[in-house]
Amino acid sequence: MIDAPDALLDHVQFDDDGLVAAIVQDDETDEVLMMAFMNENTLALTLKTGRMTYWSRSREEVWVKGATSGNTQAVRSVRLDCDGDALLFRVTQKGGACHTGHHSCFFRRASNDGWQEDGEMAFDPDEAYG
Amino acid sequence: MIDAPDALLDHVQFDDDGLVAAIVQDDETDEVLMMAFMNENTLALTLKTGRMTYWSRSREEVWVKGATSGNTQAVRSVRLDCDGDALLFRVTQKGGACHTGHHSCFFRRASNDGWQEDGEMAFDPDEAYG
Repeated sequence: MIDAPDALLDHVQFDDDGLVAAIVQDDETDEVLMMAFMNENTLALTLKTGRMTYWSRSREEVWVKGATSGNTQAVRSVRLDCDGDALLFRVTQKGGACHTGHHSCFFRRASNDGWQEDGEMAFDPDEAYG
Repeated sequence: MIDAPDALLDHVQFDDDGLVAAIVQDDETDEVLMMAFMNENTLALTLKTGRMTYWSRSREEVWVKGATSGNTQAVRSVRLDCDGDALLFRVTQKGGACHTGHHSCFFRRASNDGWQEDGEMAFDPDEAYG
């Protein structure tokens, strides 16, 4: 928990809608789980409580992750990028992060046949630009 | 490389400014390196060339990562999230991803003393919400 998040909040660059991007990474597997948005209030709540708490743009309300589904996210560390407009959270994910039931929201992979849930590698490491 | 990216582009939800968030993860270390934005044109270029190519909001121009610095990013895989408004790229990063010289743009960590480049763990895993 962060005792006094104000010193942290001062360095975050919220956009014109008052939001900052929150990237969420699984602390055990390093898998990127999801991206959502926080406003100043829900970022402060996240820092104080250690529970990932977003601002839902579609529902226009505070969204404590897992409050209804049980699929909570416990914060392990928080990082801010160089220009202050993106946050990286490492979390312990309970259940799946995605409302579809997948562990990660990034379950679709690019292939020459479109987006595939278990698509082949779209890029051959030997052919990709080195 | 993707031969015909149109089938992929059709599923991407660009925002009111015509942009989509691109999260970039190091394919060797799983470290999250940066987040930037792409428009439809630079996403198509990225898919076709296998070189990470962004839209610079500040400079309002196409930004081929590493074109001036040499710190290129070769695409290894591309994933789309469930609601289509965020992309996850795994890349082979040459040099550092950050213009500050750090390997990752997320080099500042939250602590009770503010953002620290090598800060202590802000969250004690034993104390964090389970």
